[in-house]
Amino acid sequence: MGIEDFLESGDERLDMQLLFTAEIDKMTSVYRRTMLISGERRENDAEHSWHLAVMALLFKEYCIEEPDPLHAMEMAVVHDLVEIYAGDTFAYDAKGNEDKAEREAAAADRLFSQLPREQGERLRALWEEFDAAQTRDAKYAACLDRIQPFLHNTLTEGHTWREGGTNRAQVEARMGIIREFMPRVYGWIEKNLDRGIEKGWLAT
Amino acid sequence: MGIEDFLESGDERLDMQLLFTAEIDKMTSVYRRTMLISGERRENDAEHSWHLAVMALLFKEYCIEEPDPLHAMEMAVVHDLVEIYAGDTFAYDAKGNEDKAEREAAAADRLFSQLPREQGERLRALWEEFDAAQTRDAKYAACLDRIQPFLHNTLTEGHTWREGGTNRAQVEARMGIIREFMPRVYGWIEKNLDRGIEKGWLAT
Repeated sequence: MGIEDFLESGDERLDMQLLFTAEIDKMTSVYRRTMLISGERRENDAEHSWHLAVMALLFKEYCIEEPDPLHAMEMAVVHDLVEIYAGDTFAYDAKGNEDKAEREAAAADRLFSQLPREQGERLRALWEEFDAAQTRDAKYAACLDRIQPFLHNTLTEGHTWREGGTNRAQVEARMGIIREFMPRVYGWIEKNLDRGIEKGWLAT
Repeated sequence: MGIEDFLESGDERLDMQLLFTAEIDKMTSVYRRTMLISGERRENDAEHSWHLAVMALLFKEYCIEEPDPLHAMEMAVVHDLVEIYAGDTFAYDAKGNEDKAEREAAAADRLFSQLPREQGERLRALWEEFDAAQTRDAKYAACLDRIQPFLHNTLTEGHTWREGGTNRAQVEARMGIIREFMPRVYGWIEKNLDRGIEKGWLAT
């Protein structure tokens, strides 16, 4: 008996939605470079996406233009879904980022077509909006997507930076959107970049 | 150097929010009874909460009264936060459920007071609304909170049911809110309860 047999409800549309729900449970085995704050193991995409979703409720006051936190939350929970097929691409991996867009677009075609058409299109639009980082809410979500791993790195002795031999300029470039869109939070980023250098977690 | 040193931004309010963000990463080590669909290990509260959040975008059409999916999503991402201190209480554990309300209220006091007052109150209100399951959106979220583990159980050979010696009447009682609020989805639940009995995963 295959998975489809258990998801046979007698309603084709509901079947698709249940199968999709089962499929995205694979987010729990897409591991990121970032360590959990406990240092126990790497975090996975499901955990990371959830963490951003809660953060969306907490940090909007720091944005130069007030975002809609719930729209940012929607983007947060779907923004990494394509990694089920495309895998996680480390932010500071230049080579992996060369063909990232192509790999992720193919993954999106494969993933979102598993939903009823208008739902697939809606989720894909959320992902595309996040990825383009042009709208106010997408900028907010993109900032959270940088603050969260920065926080984890800071609290795990720069684990990901040390592992990758990352330098300050690379992190500054990645955090640029925070400097622009959430300048008060960037003050904290900067302080910890200084600490990262002091402690030797970040290359100069 | 303690965690607080790294979260010292020079802005007391931001410090609280960053510390809270770090604190809730502990959701990744609150393990539930439910197995991941891969069967690899139990799922944790962060993964479970994320899964419900995505589901909130997909299943509203089955509700007898159309919910606001984003408000349900907000509840989904915070509904288990108190388990960081209160632990996960298995749905079919009668003894554990006796003092659950008390343990969770104490946990909520401890957790939400770590945020700036109005944010703590807002998150607590979301949790309370979810927990009471009286509003339309809370009913939707509560249904998702039952559909998701039911799906996982169904796809892991009734793992949690077998482990707990759970019987059909217990699951039916727990799924009652789906029968009322999402009757078309309950058809699928019923079909798999029959299968669970057939396969011996559920006691009669």
